[in-house]
Amino acid sequence: MAIRGVYETVMYAADVPAAATFYADVLGLRLVDGPDELAAGFRLDDRGVLLIFDPSRASRPGRPVPSHGASGAGHIAFSVEDGTLDVCAETLRGRGIEIEREIEWDRGGRSIYFRDPAGNSVELVEGDLWPA
Amino acid sequence: MAIRGVYETVMYAADVPAAATFYADVLGLRLVDGPDELAAGFRLDDRGVLLIFDPSRASRPGRPVPSHGASGAGHIAFSVEDGTLDVCAETLRGRGIEIEREIEWDRGGRSIYFRDPAGNSVELVEGDLWPA
Repeated sequence: MAIRGVYETVMYAADVPAAATFYADVLGLRLVDGPDELAAGFRLDDRGVLLIFDPSRASRPGRPVPSHGASGAGHIAFSVEDGTLDVCAETLRGRGIEIEREIEWDRGGRSIYFRDPAGNSVELVEGDLWPA
Repeated sequence: MAIRGVYETVMYAADVPAAATFYADVLGLRLVDGPDELAAGFRLDDRGVLLIFDPSRASRPGRPVPSHGASGAGHIAFSVEDGTLDVCAETLRGRGIEIEREIEWDRGGRSIYFRDPAGNSVELVEGDLWPA
């Protein structure tokens, strides 16, 4: 097994277009697929892909790909360029988005947390807070 | 907003140690945190992090971080080195893991799909199947 990294990360939202607008317009991610009622796809600068699915549609049997679909708040963390986290927090507040928590990690690195329109917990991280 | 990429991808499993064993022993990911009843953390070769959480514990209020936790099958795709997908499929079958589907994508790239012990849909991808 020569796994290089995570290629697709999935978040779920009953209203895919509303979530896609948030990730595109507020977080500035680049939409490369959709959005439609089923899904939206974003390409990140590091070549990774973020997919947003409506779990009620993605879980239907008989799709070309295996079914999946979860309900409840998911979590995702994005890495941001060093020195830009405070600007991100200001930008989010300026868009009316509440910063739910800010954490300085013992191991180094800082995080801010907020919610997407579907209630998922979104984190922006400056630095590297996990063991190498 | 200068988002570089996805830093943490989260999957949910009621039995975190069982899922962690799968991702470590079968997929060969490098465990860097846990596992315990709440969570396990893996570091990928591209510096990204995969976290596995028990949703019933991660969703409890009053944790140091904002609550989250989803139920139902999630989905994740990992990228593998070019030319190694067939070997991955053979390795999985040799471990008794059923390959649920294999897809050759019109845009290029190939995928195989299987399930982790929690029922999440796991995909291994060779090549790049999304628009740049």
